[in-house]
Amino acid sequence: MQTKTPVGILGATGMVGQRFVQLLEHHPWFEVAWLAASDRSEGRLYGEAARWKMRTLLPARVAEMRVSPAVPEGAPKIIFAALDASIAAEMEPRFASAGCAVVTNSSALRMQSDVPLVIPEVNPDHIQMIECQSWRKKSGGFVVTNPNCSAIGLVIALKPLQDLFGIETVMVVTMQAVSGAGYPGVASLDILGNVIPYIAKEEEKMEEETRKLLGGLNGSGFVPAEFGMSAQCNRVAVEDGHTESVSVKLKKKARPEEMMKAWNEFRSVPQELKLPSAPEQPVRYTESADRPQPRFDVDSGNGMTATVGRLRPCGVFDWKFTVLSHNTIRGAAGAALLNAELLKVRGYLG
Amino acid sequence: MQTKTPVGILGATGMVGQRFVQLLEHHPWFEVAWLAASDRSEGRLYGEAARWKMRTLLPARVAEMRVSPAVPEGAPKIIFAALDASIAAEMEPRFASAGCAVVTNSSALRMQSDVPLVIPEVNPDHIQMIECQSWRKKSGGFVVTNPNCSAIGLVIALKPLQDLFGIETVMVVTMQAVSGAGYPGVASLDILGNVIPYIAKEEEKMEEETRKLLGGLNGSGFVPAEFGMSAQCNRVAVEDGHTESVSVKLKKKARPEEMMKAWNEFRSVPQELKLPSAPEQPVRYTESADRPQPRFDVDSGNGMTATVGRLRPCGVFDWKFTVLSHNTIRGAAGAALLNAELLKVRGYLG
Amino acid sequence: MQTKTPVGILGATGMVGQRFVQLLEHHPWFEVAWLAASDRSEGRLYGEAARWKMRTLLPARVAEMRVSPAVPEGAPKIIFAALDASIAAEMEPRFASAGCAVVTNSSALRMQSDVPLVIPEVNPDHIQMIECQSWRKKSGGFVVTNPNCSAIGLVIALKPLQDLFGIETVMVVTMQAVSGAGYPGVASLDILGNVIPYIAKEEEKMEEETRKLLGGLNGSGFVPAEFGMSAQCNRVAVEDGHTESVSVKLKKKARPEEMMKAWNEFRSVPQELKLPSAPEQPVRYTESADRPQPRFDVDSGNGMTATVGRLRPCGVFDWKFTVLSHNTIRGAAGAALLNAELLKVRGYLG
Amino acid sequence: MQTKTPVGILGATGMVGQRFVQLLEHHPWFEVAWLAASDRSEGRLYGEAARWKMRTLLPARVAEMRVSPAVPEGAPKIIFAALDASIAAEMEPRFASAGCAVVTNSSALRMQSDVPLVIPEVNPDHIQMIECQSWRKKSGGFVVTNPNCSAIGLVIALKPLQDLFGIETVMVVTMQAVSGAGYPGVASLDILGNVIPYIAKEEEKMEEETRKLLGGLNGSGFVPAEFGMSAQCNRVAVEDGHTESVSVKLKKKARPEEMMKAWNEFRSVPQELKLPSAPEQPVRYTESADRPQPRFDVDSGNGMTATVGRLRPCGVFDWKFTVLSHNTIRGAAGAALLNAELLKVRGYLG
Repeated sequence: MQTKTPVGILGATGMVGQRFVQLLEHHPWFEVAWLAASDRSEGRLYGEAARWKMRTLLPARVAEMRVSPAVPEGAPKIIFAALDASIAAEMEPRFASAGCAVVTNSSALRMQSDVPLVIPEVNPDHIQMIECQSWRKKSGGFVVTNPNCSAIGLVIALKPLQDLFGIETVMVVTMQAVSGAGYPGVASLDILGNVIPYIAKEEEKMEEETRKLLGGLNGSGFVPAEFGMSAQCNRVAVEDGHTESVSVKLKKKARPEEMMKAWNEFRSVPQELKLPSAPEQPVRYTESADRPQPRFDVDSGNGMTATVGRLRPCGVFDWKFTVLSHNTIRGAAGAALLNAELLKVRGYLG
Repeated sequence: MQTKTPVGILGATGMVGQRFVQLLEHHPWFEVAWLAASDRSEGRLYGEAARWKMRTLLPARVAEMRVSPAVPEGAPKIIFAALDASIAAEMEPRFASAGCAVVTNSSALRMQSDVPLVIPEVNPDHIQMIECQSWRKKSGGFVVTNPNCSAIGLVIALKPLQDLFGIETVMVVTMQAVSGAGYPGVASLDILGNVIPYIAKEEEKMEEETRKLLGGLNGSGFVPAEFGMSAQCNRVAVEDGHTESVSVKLKKKARPEEMMKAWNEFRSVPQELKLPSAPEQPVRYTESADRPQPRFDVDSGNGMTATVGRLRPCGVFDWKFTVLSHNTIRGAAGAALLNAELLKVRGYLG
Repeated sequence: MQTKTPVGILGATGMVGQRFVQLLEHHPWFEVAWLAASDRSEGRLYGEAARWKMRTLLPARVAEMRVSPAVPEGAPKIIFAALDASIAAEMEPRFASAGCAVVTNSSALRMQSDVPLVIPEVNPDHIQMIECQSWRKKSGGFVVTNPNCSAIGLVIALKPLQDLFGIETVMVVTMQAVSGAGYPGVASLDILGNVIPYIAKEEEKMEEETRKLLGGLNGSGFVPAEFGMSAQCNRVAVEDGHTESVSVKLKKKARPEEMMKAWNEFRSVPQELKLPSAPEQPVRYTESADRPQPRFDVDSGNGMTATVGRLRPCGVFDWKFTVLSHNTIRGAAGAALLNAELLKVRGYLG
Repeated sequence: MQTKTPVGILGATGMVGQRFVQLLEHHPWFEVAWLAASDRSEGRLYGEAARWKMRTLLPARVAEMRVSPAVPEGAPKIIFAALDASIAAEMEPRFASAGCAVVTNSSALRMQSDVPLVIPEVNPDHIQMIECQSWRKKSGGFVVTNPNCSAIGLVIALKPLQDLFGIETVMVVTMQAVSGAGYPGVASLDILGNVIPYIAKEEEKMEEETRKLLGGLNGSGFVPAEFGMSAQCNRVAVEDGHTESVSVKLKKKARPEEMMKAWNEFRSVPQELKLPSAPEQPVRYTESADRPQPRFDVDSGNGMTATVGRLRPCGVFDWKFTVLSHNTIRGAAGAALLNAELLKVRGYLG
C-alpha cells in the first residue's frame, strides 16, 4: 500500500471543515494529518471540539486527533482552508509564506491579482499564476482559491455555452441553502416558512468571480470576461443545494438541442486526468419539466455534478434555464479538493 | 342599520373561496348569501363541506349555510368566483349570461378581448370594456377578472415606475408560496426542504397579464404594454406570500430616492374613493437591508399592500429590487373584492 | 385620560423582551418607560439595538427610546424581566433589593422557597408569599415568576381536572416551537426537516414547576402537589406554539363530557377581575378530530387561551388528550403581564 | 452467475412500491420481473406511470418495464405488496389463493388470526402459522405481513428489554414523518411549520400490532403480549424517520448499562442467517445527549437499524428513551424484504 500525502485542515470544526474531513476519509491520495481551528478548540480532541453535522459518521481516526494551534509550525505542507474571510485574510498569507500550499475555500484572496480562482473544469490554466506570488518566490508556498458556492454552479453551466456560443449577458437569481451560511448560521426563526432576499456581499462575489473564472490570462495577469452580469441572491429553507434561475444572451445563435448536448457532453481537464473527485459529468441536463430540485438532484455525481434543466426561450434575452449545485461539496470542500488534485497532477504539491 | 348587498361565492370551499368568506365576514357593503361548490358539496352545510384552512374562525352564520347547486337560478346578482380554470371557462359565461356580475379570480377569461383584467390602483378604466361584452348586452351580466397571484405584486410595484419613468424591460424571478396552488395543492414531500423550479402555465400568465394590466385602452379594445418581459417561476416552502426578484430598465433616468418616493406616495382610485378593502398604501418601500420577507411583511395593509425593498443598481439593466405580496389576499380574494367595490361605486352593480 | 404606570423591561432586546414591548403597546394600565439589555446595547436606540422579530411593527415611540444600563438606579418600580437564567439569578435580586417589583419570566428563582410561581388562573393565592421575601421586608421590592413555556399549557389544562376529579399521574411528551429557544436560538441546520429530542433542563423544569403550580400553600410555604409526573421534551420545526401529548390518571371517575365541560367552563380570578390580558376562556376544547394544531390554534384568545383536543381513553391511564399553547405569549411575556395585572389589583404595585 | 428469483410488486407506483424497486435494484436473490398498479397505470411504462420520488435514480431496466394488470395470472410466485388497505383486503387473498407468496406491507390482514405479523428479529417463528392458512392448503399460496411503520421501531427497541427484563407497561408518543402517508399524502399547507396530532387508525394499529409482535404462539394461534400499552401519534414536518418518546415499566429491575448493552448487542435470526437486508445491528444506542434525530440517524444500517437514545429514569414508570427508525425502509419496504428473505431461507418460497 502506497503512503498517502498528509494534509492539514484550517478551520476544521466548521461546516466546510467537516466536509473536508468527510470527503477526505477515503481519499486515495490525501490523508488528514493535522487539524486546526479557533483557540477555543485548540488542544481538544476533534471529536469533542467539533459539533459533527454531516450525515455520515465522524471517522474514528479523526475524532481522536487533537486540534493543533493554527500556526504553520508543525503543519503539513498542504493545507485545506475553510476559515471566515476576515481570519483567512491574515492566516492564509502566513501559511503560504511559511511554504505551505494553501488550497482555500475562503473569499479573502479570491480577487487578488496574483491568486488563481479556479474551477478545474473551467479555467485550469489559471493556476500558473501561482508563480507570480511573492510567497512562492520566497518559500515555495502559494494560495489557490475556489469560487463562492453560488458562483460555481452558474459558471460550470455557462462554460460549455461560452465555449460554443459566446456569452453576452447573464442574469441570475439564486435560492440558496442554509448550509451556505455555516453553523449555526441562519437562525431557524429567520428561515422557517420564509425567504430572505439578502445575503451579505454575495451578489458582488457572484458577479466579479464569474467574470474572473470565465476570463482569460495574459502576460500581466487575469483578464475578466466582459459580458454583462447581474445577480440577485436569496436564502430559502433548503438544507443543501443552491438553485438558480438564469437568463442568458449568447453571441451566436444556439438551438436548444445544441445547448443540451453542450452540457451533457462537456468534459474537461479533471475528467481527462481522471482526478479522484472529478464527476463523470460536470454538468447534467435533465429533461423533467420540474427539475432540477435540491431534494432529488443535489447529490448528483456525489455532489460534484451541476444539474441544469428547464431550458426555454427568454422573452428578453435568448434562453432561460435553472441550474442546481451542491453548495458545500461542488461549492466548497469538493471544489478545493478538486483544485488540490489538479495541483498535485500538475506538480505543484511537491 | 343599512341592508347589505347579498353576494354569492362560486367555488366557496377551496382556498380562495374560503378567503372570500373570511374577507366578507365584516364587509360594510356585501354579505354572503349564497355558496356553491362542486357537486360533492351540494346540499351539505358549508361548515361540513369545507375543510376550513383560514387562521381565523369560520363565521358561524356561514358554517350553517347550505351549499347551493352551482347554477344561476336562485343565485344573487353578484358572484365572486374562485373556480379552477377549466370549470370557470364554462361556468362563468353561464352566470354572466343569466345576468350576474361575475367578479372572478379564475384565469379562464382573463385574456379574452372583451374581458377587463383589473387592478383598481393600476387600470381602473379598463372596466368600461364590460359594455362590449355580449352578456352585458343580452342580460346585463358581465365578467371582470383580477390577475394571477404572481402578476399582481409585480404590476403594483411597476405601475408607479411606469407612470414616472416609463418601462422598457422587466425580468422577474418568483419564489411562490404553496397556498397559491390551493388545497391540497403542493404535496409536503415535494416542498419540504426543497424548491420546485416550475409552476404550470405561470410564466406565460405573468408575462401576458402584466402587459395587459399596464397596457392601454382604445376604441377597439385593450392595447398591451410593449416592454420586454421575462418571468421565471419557482415554488418554495412558504405558506403565504410571493417574493419576486425584479430587474428593470426604465425609459427615463431615475434616482433611487425618486423611485422610493414613487412607491411610498403612490395612491390611486381605490384610495381616493376610500374603497373598504383599499389599503392606505398600495406599495410600501422598506429600507431594511434584508426585507421584504414573507414572515414579516406579508400581512402589510391587511394583506393588500405590496412591499418593495432592496432597491440597488443592476449590472445589466437599471435597477434591481424585491417585491412581496400576499398571494391569496392581494393576489386573489382581496383583489376580486376590491374590483367589486370599484364596480359598485362606478354603478355596475345595480 | 388617566396616566399609565411606567414599567421597565430587563432583557428588552431578546425574543421575550420584544413580546413585552409588543403586548404593552396598547396596554390600558402600563406603559414602557425604561428598557435595559446587555452592555452591548446600552446607550443605543432600542430600534437599532433590537433585531425586531415580531410580526407587528415596532412601536415608533419605543424604537426611539434609549437602552438604559441594567441597574436599578433610574429604573421604574415595576420591572418585567426576560433575562437568561444565569444573569437573572444575579440581577433580579438586585432589583428586588432596590425596591422594585420584579415580574419575571426567567427560571432562575422559580423554585426558590419564598418566590411565588404563579399562573393567575391556577394559583393566584401564591402571591402572598411575597411577604416572606427578605427583599420585601427590606425595601418593599419582590420577585414573582411565571412558569416555563412548556409547563404553562399543561398546567392550565390540568387545573380544571384537578379541581373536579383530582390528579394521580401525568405523563406528557412535548413538541416545542423554536421561538422557545430565543433568538438566534435553534440553528436552521438543526431543525429543518428534523426533530431534536432534547431541550436542556426542560423536563426537570416541567416536572417540578407543574407540582409547585398545582400544589398548595401552608404556614411554612409551598406544598408541591404529590401526583406522579414524567415529561419528555422535543423540539420541532414550528415557529410558535408548544403541542403536548398528555396521559392522565384521575382520582375520581370522569366522563368525557364532564371533562370537556370542565375545560370550556373553567373561569378563574383573572376572568372575574376582568384583567386586561385575561382571555375570556383560559382553556378551549376543540372537537375537531385533528386539532389543536399550532397553525390554526396558537393565537386563540390572543395567544392566552390553551386549546385542548383529542380527548380519548388511554390504554394505560384514564385519558389521553393534546394541549397547545402559545409559548411566547401565554408561556412567557403574556404570563408575566397577567401576573403583573393580578399584582396591581391585589395592591402589590403601590 | 446464479439466476435470481423473479418477484412482482403490487402497488408499484406508490411511495412504498418505489422503495421496493429501489431496494431490489441490487438484491442478490430477487429480481423485479413484474409490476402492477392501479388501472390508470396499467399498460404504461413504469417510468411514465410512476412519479419517481426516491433520491436515487430510477433503474433504467425497471423504467422500461410495462405495468401489468393487477391479477395473479402471469404474475410471479413471489409478490411484494404495497397497496392501500381497502384494496389489499380484496387483492391479497386473491393472489394467495392463486398460489402466490404475498409478502405485504399493507395493514389489511395484519391482525387476522392465521396471518403472521413478523419482524424477523423479533418473532421469526410466527411464520409457521402460514401452514394454517386456507390459501396454503389450497394452492400453496400464503400471506405474511410486516407491521405499521410506527410500531416497528418501538417493537425492535422493546424486544431486547422484553427478553431480559420483561415488559409491564409501555407508553409512546410518536412524531411521524410525512412519507408515512404516501404520495401526495400530507398537503404542504397542513404541515409546514405545524404539528398534526392525529393520524387515522394509527394509534389502534400501534397498540394491537405491538402486542401481537411481542406475543407468543401456541397450538391454537397467536397469543398477544399482555402488557399495558398506550400510543399517541403525531405528524411532523420531517421527510423520513419516525421519532418516538417512550416510557416503560419493566418486570425486573434493570440498570441503564444493562439496557444499553441489551440494545447494542441484540442480534437475532436475520443476523445469524446473514440475510442480505439484515443490518449488522438491529438496534444501536447513541450516547449523544440530543440524539437520535431524523436528519442524522435515519439512514443508520441502510435504514434498517433503529436508533435509541436519551435513556433516563422516568418519574412515573421505570425508564424513558427515544427511538427513531426509517419509516419507509425498516418500517415498510425493507421490512417486507427482510420477511421475504427469512421465508426463502426457511423454504417457503419454493
